[in-house]
Amino acid sequence: MDYSSINTPPACYADFCLVPVGTGTTSVAAEVAEVQKVVKASGLKYTMHSAGTTVEGPWDEVMTVIGKAHTIVHQTGAVRVQTSMRVGTRTDKKQTAEDKVKRVQDLLEESK
Amino acid sequence: MDYSSINTPPACYADFCLVPVGTGTTSVAAEVAEVQKVVKASGLKYTMHSAGTTVEGPWDEVMTVIGKAHTIVHQTGAVRVQTSMRVGTRTDKKQTAEDKVKRVQDLLEESK
Amino acid sequence: MDYSSINTPPACYADFCLVPVGTGTTSVAAEVAEVQKVVKASGLKYTMHSAGTTVEGPWDEVMTVIGKAHTIVHQTGAVRVQTSMRVGTRTDKKQTAEDKVKRVQDLLEESK
Amino acid sequence: MDYSSINTPPACYADFCLVPVGTGTTSVAAEVAEVQKVVKASGLKYTMHSAGTTVEGPWDEVMTVIGKAHTIVHQTGAVRVQTSMRVGTRTDKKQTAEDKVKRVQDLLEESK
Repeated sequence: MDYSSINTPPACYADFCLVPVGTGTTSVAAEVAEVQKVVKASGLKYTMHSAGTTVEGPWDEVMTVIGKAHTIVHQTGAVRVQTSMRVGTRTDKKQTAEDKVKRVQDLLEESK
Repeated sequence: MDYSSINTPPACYADFCLVPVGTGTTSVAAEVAEVQKVVKASGLKYTMHSAGTTVEGPWDEVMTVIGKAHTIVHQTGAVRVQTSMRVGTRTDKKQTAEDKVKRVQDLLEESK
Repeated sequence: MDYSSINTPPACYADFCLVPVGTGTTSVAAEVAEVQKVVKASGLKYTMHSAGTTVEGPWDEVMTVIGKAHTIVHQTGAVRVQTSMRVGTRTDKKQTAEDKVKRVQDLLEESK
Repeated sequence: MDYSSINTPPACYADFCLVPVGTGTTSVAAEVAEVQKVVKASGLKYTMHSAGTTVEGPWDEVMTVIGKAHTIVHQTGAVRVQTSMRVGTRTDKKQTAEDKVKRVQDLLEESK
C-alpha cells in the first residue's frame, strides 16, 4: 500500500491536558491560560473544563494548535511539557461536543 | 520500606472516558448514560463533559466507581471495555473542579 | 438497580505514566524508580516501557498500587502528581501483555 | 502575540493506543497490525508494547502518522476510532526511549 498518499482525518476532536514539568511551582493556571490563548487564536471550536480542553476541527489543524501550545509553554520556562490526549474520529456523521452531551442527557431523562 | 502500610491518597480527581469495544454499534451514548447512573449512585461529586466525566473524592472510592462502571458496561453486552483516565492528587490544598476553571478564567480576564 | 452490590472487575490491565509536578527538576527518573519499587512490592505482574508501566491483576489491587505510587511520590517532595492511565477489561478470555504483542507480531509476519 | 508564527516542537515522543469502535469483534489485533505498518512506513523510530506504540520524531510528522493510522483503520471498516495518547517534549536535551528506560534501571540497580 502507498502510505504516503493517505490523508489524515478531515474532522476530529481532541481533549487534551497539558502539564509543565520541572517549573518549581505547583500552580499550572498561568500555563493553562497561555494555552487557552493559542487555542482561541486558532479559530477552532473549543471548550475548557476542569480536567482539560476539547478542540474540534481538521486533524492537522487540531494537532498543530496543540503543538504550538507545547512551544508556548516551553517559552514560559518549562523545560519539559507532557500532554495527555484523547482523540476521536468518525466517518458516519458529524457530531459536535454539545450533541454528545445532549444525547446522553436525553437518555438519562427518558430512563427516569 | 514497608509498602504494605502505605495509604492511597485521601483525595483525588479522575477524568475518565470509557469506550465499549466490539459492540457492533457506533453509538456509545447508552453505555455512557449507564456510567452516569453508577457515578451518581456513588454520591461522589462529578461533572460530565463531551470527552469524559470528572469524579472527585478519596482515591479508593473514585477507582471503585470507575471499576463498577466497567462491570455495568460489560453487563450491557460489551466484551471489552477500554478507559482512558487522567488522575491528579495534591498535598498542598484542596481545589475543586470549579476552582480550577475559575482560576484560569480570572487569569484570562486579567490579561485582557 | 442496586449499585452498591456491583463488583469491580476481577482482572484488568492498567498502563500508567505518573508525572510529579512542581519539583523544580526536569528529571523524573528518581520518582519513576520509586514507583517501580512499589509496583514490584505488590507482587502483581508488570512491565516497564519508555512511556509508562503496565500492571496486570484484579481491578482493586491494580488501582491500590497506583494510588500508593502517588503517595510515595508525594513523600519524595512532589506537591502535585498527575497520572495518565489506560485501563482495559474483558470478559471473554484472559490475555496477557505478552499474548497481545505476540498476536500482532504473528499477523505482521503472516502478511509479509 | 502573533500565534501564527509559532512553530510546533522539532522533537517529541507520542505513546498512543488506538481503539476501533463499533466493529462487532472484540479482537483489535488486525487493526493494530495495520497501524504498525503505517508507522513503519513513516520511517520514524518506534516501539510497540502491549498497551500501545511509542513513536519519536518531529511533532508534525508524528501527528501525521497517527492521523494516517486513524484513516487506515476507518478503511478497514471501523466507523469510529478512538485514540489515547501521551505526548512529551523537552528543550534541554535529547533523550531516546531506550535512554529513559536505562536511566530508571540504573537507579534501581544502584539502590539495591
